[in-house]
Amino acid sequence: MINRIYQNFSQKAGLPPGTVVHVGEKTEERTRIDLMRFTPTKIFEQQCNTVAEIADTAVDAGAITWVHVNGIHQPRVVEEIGRKFDFHALILEDIANTGHRPKIDEWDEYLFLVVKSLTYDEQSLFVMPAHVAFVFRDDVVVSFQESGPDLFASLRERIRTGNGRVRKKGADYLLYALLDTVVDGYYSLLEKMGDRVGDLEELALGGDASAIFHEIHEFRQEMTVIRRSIWPLRDIISRLENNEAFISENTRHYLADVHDHVIQSIDIAETFRDMLAGLQEIALSLNSNKMNEIMKVLTLIATIFIPLTFIAGVYGMNFKFMPELEWKWGYFAALAFMFLVGCSMGIYFKKKSWL
Amino acid sequence: MINRIYQNFSQKAGLPPGTVVHVGEKTEERTRIDLMRFTPTKIFEQQCNTVAEIADTAVDAGAITWVHVNGIHQPRVVEEIGRKFDFHALILEDIANTGHRPKIDEWDEYLFLVVKSLTYDEQSLFVMPAHVAFVFRDDVVVSFQESGPDLFASLRERIRTGNGRVRKKGADYLLYALLDTVVDGYYSLLEKMGDRVGDLEELALGGDASAIFHEIHEFRQEMTVIRRSIWPLRDIISRLENNEAFISENTRHYLADVHDHVIQSIDIAETFRDMLAGLQEIALSLNSNKMNEIMKVLTLIATIFIPLTFIAGVYGMNFKFMPELEWKWGYFAALAFMFLVGCSMGIYFKKKSWL
Amino acid sequence: MINRIYQNFSQKAGLPPGTVVHVGEKTEERTRIDLMRFTPTKIFEQQCNTVAEIADTAVDAGAITWVHVNGIHQPRVVEEIGRKFDFHALILEDIANTGHRPKIDEWDEYLFLVVKSLTYDEQSLFVMPAHVAFVFRDDVVVSFQESGPDLFASLRERIRTGNGRVRKKGADYLLYALLDTVVDGYYSLLEKMGDRVGDLEELALGGDASAIFHEIHEFRQEMTVIRRSIWPLRDIISRLENNEAFISENTRHYLADVHDHVIQSIDIAETFRDMLAGLQEIALSLNSNKMNEIMKVLTLIATIFIPLTFIAGVYGMNFKFMPELEWKWGYFAALAFMFLVGCSMGIYFKKKSWL
Amino acid sequence: MINRIYQNFSQKAGLPPGTVVHVGEKTEERTRIDLMRFTPTKIFEQQCNTVAEIADTAVDAGAITWVHVNGIHQPRVVEEIGRKFDFHALILEDIANTGHRPKIDEWDEYLFLVVKSLTYDEQSLFVMPAHVAFVFRDDVVVSFQESGPDLFASLRERIRTGNGRVRKKGADYLLYALLDTVVDGYYSLLEKMGDRVGDLEELALGGDASAIFHEIHEFRQEMTVIRRSIWPLRDIISRLENNEAFISENTRHYLADVHDHVIQSIDIAETFRDMLAGLQEIALSLNSNKMNEIMKVLTLIATIFIPLTFIAGVYGMNFKFMPELEWKWGYFAALAFMFLVGCSMGIYFKKKSWL
Amino acid sequence: MINRIYQNFSQKAGLPPGTVVHVGEKTEERTRIDLMRFTPTKIFEQQCNTVAEIADTAVDAGAITWVHVNGIHQPRVVEEIGRKFDFHALILEDIANTGHRPKIDEWDEYLFLVVKSLTYDEQSLFVMPAHVAFVFRDDVVVSFQESGPDLFASLRERIRTGNGRVRKKGADYLLYALLDTVVDGYYSLLEKMGDRVGDLEELALGGDASAIFHEIHEFRQEMTVIRRSIWPLRDIISRLENNEAFISENTRHYLADVHDHVIQSIDIAETFRDMLAGLQEIALSLNSNKMNEIMKVLTLIATIFIPLTFIAGVYGMNFKFMPELEWKWGYFAALAFMFLVGCSMGIYFKKKSWL
Repeated sequence: MINRIYQNFSQKAGLPPGTVVHVGEKTEERTRIDLMRFTPTKIFEQQCNTVAEIADTAVDAGAITWVHVNGIHQPRVVEEIGRKFDFHALILEDIANTGHRPKIDEWDEYLFLVVKSLTYDEQSLFVMPAHVAFVFRDDVVVSFQESGPDLFASLRERIRTGNGRVRKKGADYLLYALLDTVVDGYYSLLEKMGDRVGDLEELALGGDASAIFHEIHEFRQEMTVIRRSIWPLRDIISRLENNEAFISENTRHYLADVHDHVIQSIDIAETFRDMLAGLQEIALSLNSNKMNEIMKVLTLIATIFIPLTFIAGVYGMNFKFMPELEWKWGYFAALAFMFLVGCSMGIYFKKKSWL
Repeated sequence: MINRIYQNFSQKAGLPPGTVVHVGEKTEERTRIDLMRFTPTKIFEQQCNTVAEIADTAVDAGAITWVHVNGIHQPRVVEEIGRKFDFHALILEDIANTGHRPKIDEWDEYLFLVVKSLTYDEQSLFVMPAHVAFVFRDDVVVSFQESGPDLFASLRERIRTGNGRVRKKGADYLLYALLDTVVDGYYSLLEKMGDRVGDLEELALGGDASAIFHEIHEFRQEMTVIRRSIWPLRDIISRLENNEAFISENTRHYLADVHDHVIQSIDIAETFRDMLAGLQEIALSLNSNKMNEIMKVLTLIATIFIPLTFIAGVYGMNFKFMPELEWKWGYFAALAFMFLVGCSMGIYFKKKSWL
Repeated sequence: MINRIYQNFSQKAGLPPGTVVHVGEKTEERTRIDLMRFTPTKIFEQQCNTVAEIADTAVDAGAITWVHVNGIHQPRVVEEIGRKFDFHALILEDIANTGHRPKIDEWDEYLFLVVKSLTYDEQSLFVMPAHVAFVFRDDVVVSFQESGPDLFASLRERIRTGNGRVRKKGADYLLYALLDTVVDGYYSLLEKMGDRVGDLEELALGGDASAIFHEIHEFRQEMTVIRRSIWPLRDIISRLENNEAFISENTRHYLADVHDHVIQSIDIAETFRDMLAGLQEIALSLNSNKMNEIMKVLTLIATIFIPLTFIAGVYGMNFKFMPELEWKWGYFAALAFMFLVGCSMGIYFKKKSWL
Repeated sequence: MINRIYQNFSQKAGLPPGTVVHVGEKTEERTRIDLMRFTPTKIFEQQCNTVAEIADTAVDAGAITWVHVNGIHQPRVVEEIGRKFDFHALILEDIANTGHRPKIDEWDEYLFLVVKSLTYDEQSLFVMPAHVAFVFRDDVVVSFQESGPDLFASLRERIRTGNGRVRKKGADYLLYALLDTVVDGYYSLLEKMGDRVGDLEELALGGDASAIFHEIHEFRQEMTVIRRSIWPLRDIISRLENNEAFISENTRHYLADVHDHVIQSIDIAETFRDMLAGLQEIALSLNSNKMNEIMKVLTLIATIFIPLTFIAGVYGMNFKFMPELEWKWGYFAALAFMFLVGCSMGIYFKKKSWL
Repeated sequence: MINRIYQNFSQKAGLPPGTVVHVGEKTEERTRIDLMRFTPTKIFEQQCNTVAEIADTAVDAGAITWVHVNGIHQPRVVEEIGRKFDFHALILEDIANTGHRPKIDEWDEYLFLVVKSLTYDEQSLFVMPAHVAFVFRDDVVVSFQESGPDLFASLRERIRTGNGRVRKKGADYLLYALLDTVVDGYYSLLEKMGDRVGDLEELALGGDASAIFHEIHEFRQEMTVIRRSIWPLRDIISRLENNEAFISENTRHYLADVHDHVIQSIDIAETFRDMLAGLQEIALSLNSNKMNEIMKVLTLIATIFIPLTFIAGVYGMNFKFMPELEWKWGYFAALAFMFLVGCSMGIYFKKKSWL
């Protein structure tokens, strides 16, 4: 758990600000750069492994360029991208720092966003946050992804086929479409988690509460990861909506829609949290109820037999003169008496509804 | 529970924004469209099953049109309505998405509202939220309802008989009347729930606390559904009140009244929540008190008999030389001694008020 | 409890807005209308049972009129008052709705306030909220009271004798004086409750904690009633202070004083709540301490005798060859041994401070 | 406790506003009035018992006058002061009401402040709040103190010797110096309480947790008194800082310093509260741990001996034909068997780490 | 713990404001003053022990001066620095008061900042806050450090080698670099604490929960120290960012970066707090689970043997006529019967899953 919350910051301590250091898991994968340059009618695609390969040929005047960098573990690549597109050193530092929380930086020349893409690892029941960064300047959107399969494959396909709005609108709409893809991912995550919450609820109400206690704890930890990733997005998109320099009136309505989705995600996550807290209470209470039930029954058995044992003890005494012992039916009378005492205690307990 | 909180969002993931997908339960019912067009003196009503049937003949200049669409599970119908009245694709998407949280969208040309109508299923003790959407533009109000019996039957009747204010005032007053109907529904819901809270309180104070523990938990879950539906309305109606483009000065006072009702609903719901939390505490405490009471009495019985059994054990020993055993009244003396010990322990416990 | 929180709202559902329906307890009492019209020098008083009887003769130019309506269960009376003084239908609806929360409505022509007068029924230990409404317009203040004895008797007396400020100042000062009377009532309420909290504290610290648990719960419920009545007043009086159209500079300072009193009332109520929460904790902890104490002592007794009983059991065995049984002092040695074992266990427990 | 939170408000109910009623403990002490009038170079001091005695002779043009009234239980004195310096009746009411919460009233002609001076009674471990009020107008500062030794003795001394800044600066600086003296008192209070918190912490961690439970509760009650006294000061001093009519630019920096001190006091008090909550948790947990420990050991002893007693019981049966009883070494074999059973149970418990 | 939260404030009570009193631990170390004066090309360094030694020779026009005072326990040194650079007495007081909370004071002529540098003492597991103050005026930055090794050694080295930005930018950038160094220290602190949280988590989930209870408590106390040190920085840096008089546009971006780091530190600290609260719950629940487990097993053993002992007791009775005793196989039948009873109870418990 702790590893998903903070990365080894101390690698950076003492270095001058703006130093590009990859903070995150080291991976052997190569960095992949996907270039897309398109107008409503034309499209140009290129895949390269180094920044130098990126083609500069414009498709057409007013063409929109989308550069997607998959794999930010090589500081050199991030620095080269920075030089090519003229980004400030502080931005490059934040792109490479995969532990950075979501944020928006509004510079005079460009917008810089950090968001978290979340996936749910159904094996480990872990929420895996992935660092995603966007820089938006003029007609260029550069997106950075930590690693793994292309997050924006379906968007790329929609651009290729050209029947969506992305081709016809500006670069700010492309930025919106990228954000929307990330936020849509939250829905599938929450849906999968919701199924699990439903299962837990069934288990809890079915009585097997103690077994789920541990899982609820882990679930709540996951909620912490989600909270840290989604909550800040609300403010970030709000500020994006109000940024008149970069976002056109038209795109604003679409961003308001993403804003809605973020709020709904938060809403659902909060509901999960409340439900889990409720389940935990139920689990605790069922658990202690069961324990009490056991203790009660056991104590009752003990309590009924202790007076009986006492009576047996009395007739086991070795006094010379004990008249009952001489009686012919003494033994059976004693047994009957014991039976009577046991029964009446049982009835008494029953009446008090202790049994 | 979990199903009433979120619907299968993932159906939508990866689709371009503005795609109209019905997110909600599938139903076989046909969509019903009720048209009402009225002036203070004239009225025209029509019921149709398809959008094409909607009559365009105006009753009179300045007539107000109310189109009520009952059943939004057919994306085609929603899309046709959208085309007929020229609504933005993002709005159509939200109309069809029955899982959407309450919201207000203020476009230049129209207002768009999503609210939740709540009914209380007294069988299952469930709060059933129904998705309701309004679009208000010029003299037209289009209302959408998820399914089920007409939510606005009483309002429709009032318009027909013409003795209310709706006929005399503008379309903004019609919008107010629709909202008011939804919010009035909260009152009946809360009243029914209040009766149930009262029952629970009586049960809890009557001592049968453990039985209600489970029900309190479910009640609190229902409160989550209510909270998610009513809370956002406060801001929504506030913003509506301040929207000078669509709402006239006159209608503002009426909206302030609905605002008051929403706040009162929230207030009552919060009070229920506090009461339930209090009842849960009481239930828990009564439960553990009862358990303690049982354990105490049982332990006391055991404790009194254990020393007595010990005494009996002593005189059951087989030593050759045990003077008491030879005594004539030894047995009775032993019994008397046991009786004495038992009594004095009982008295001691009584004095310490442990019994 | 539940009845004091919400009234049967559903009586109103489906009715057009502005319908005057008495929501509250039905009572057979007649409505009483007290009219007072005064200048610094002259005064005119009248008591009537119907609105028609209200005299219109002005005492003098600039005279201030105070109409006090005691009993709002007759919708007809409220409606007639509304017609006479030209109040909006929405206001009449809220006057008759005794379940309405405190609020202020600032209309162009008049101010409308709803507040709650609180009395403490020392028999049932219940806080009884009474619905009070004020309408202030030009030189007229109309006050409405749910029922019961005249809330403003002492103020009326002060006006009659003419030695207070009310006669010399404007109608806004009269409104202030009415509000002040209601808020002063909170002080006596809180003082009485404070005495009760003090009693509870003494009981709790005196050890009889379990007995008060139930009462603390009820007290906290009462706090909910108080909170719902007093909290909203803070904002209401704030807004009143800032209303330059109706409130003169001079009266503002007096309203600031009432504002202070409201805040102090809230402050004290909050303190009570904190103290009650603390007492409940103490009560719970004392309760469980006592139970633990009992269980500990009982278990100790049982624990000491169980090994002794075992020893007695050993010498009760019927083996042919048991050398100790033949010894002359065997019996007394056994008794002494048992005594020794019992004592050393007692000392051990003492040393571990378990006794 | 309850007495330090609210005074008998009801003495005032029904009286017209502005009536000066001493609300607080009655005391027989006489009121003392200390007058100080000074310029950077000259100083004039006078002690009187009645308002009439106050000398009017100005020392010099621009001299600053400080009137300190110690003892406000005589309404007549407060009223005379009010007449002499022309204070509004509402202010006089608040000066005499020792239960009033801290506040600032900004009138056109003067500033009025109520603050609480706190002292820690180390005998009773109670925080004693004392009512202090300031009125500041032109070159006059009038301070009121409930009773007891002069709160401002050290300040008075500093003015007398004339080596501080008070003599050289304006009356607003004098007001600052008075406030600073009160706030400095919070530091000594918190320091003494901090020592006590430290003691409690040591006790709690030393294991004697149950003993401190009660004291922690009382401590938290004291925190309520402190919170009610210090928290409001933050806003009060903020508003004072921003009052350009009465406070000069120069004094503002000094007030900012007091503001800092208030925030630090709040900060420390909050930390105490957190620590106490933590200690309470520890105390509770240690307490229940200890109880569990006892119960566990005792139950273990009982559990080991119960099977042994059973074995002894078996060989105490009186069957005619029991072969073991005839064996020569039967008795010793039985003893050995019992020893074995006891030991193996002990080892089993040890291995499960239950012992 | 308590010592790290507040220092002996009372040393200062009663002194006039602006008196420089060292509030903190006394130390025998000498004060060290490090002077650095540099331009992009030239650099001048000096180490002195008294303020008088500080050289005034400017290196060049536009040179930036950084005076670092290590050790503020000698009031005289702080006062001399104040005189030399013309600081207000209130500032000097706050520099020497090591217990002061973080703050920013914006004077007309200079900025004054108090921050806390945090180090983690891995021996005692204590967070040690150190008082750091900055005064920034024109081209001079004076930094004060409580004691210990030079906090800014790495920054000093970077300035010396001249390959960072500090040499090329203004004095505001130097101030930023100093702040950044302090905030970077929070990262290493949180990383070390995070490792410890991870260890605790492993221990808790591994079942040895009771052992960590105490440590979690201490950890939460440390969190209080961190919270008090880092939280206020958020506002302080925000205000610094918006201070246009002292901070250039260029440096603002860098300060925004520090602001981000502070928020991330807070975020991580909050997450630790949540995790610790979760761990504590787990620890408590595991602990009580284990105790319940023990009690259950022990009670079961007792419960099985009590009826058996009763049977043995019955056949130990000394009645003359007890037919079973005469049977040849009576003893073995009894043993078999006991075995049966014991087994069937065991099976019953097993079936109820109580074992």
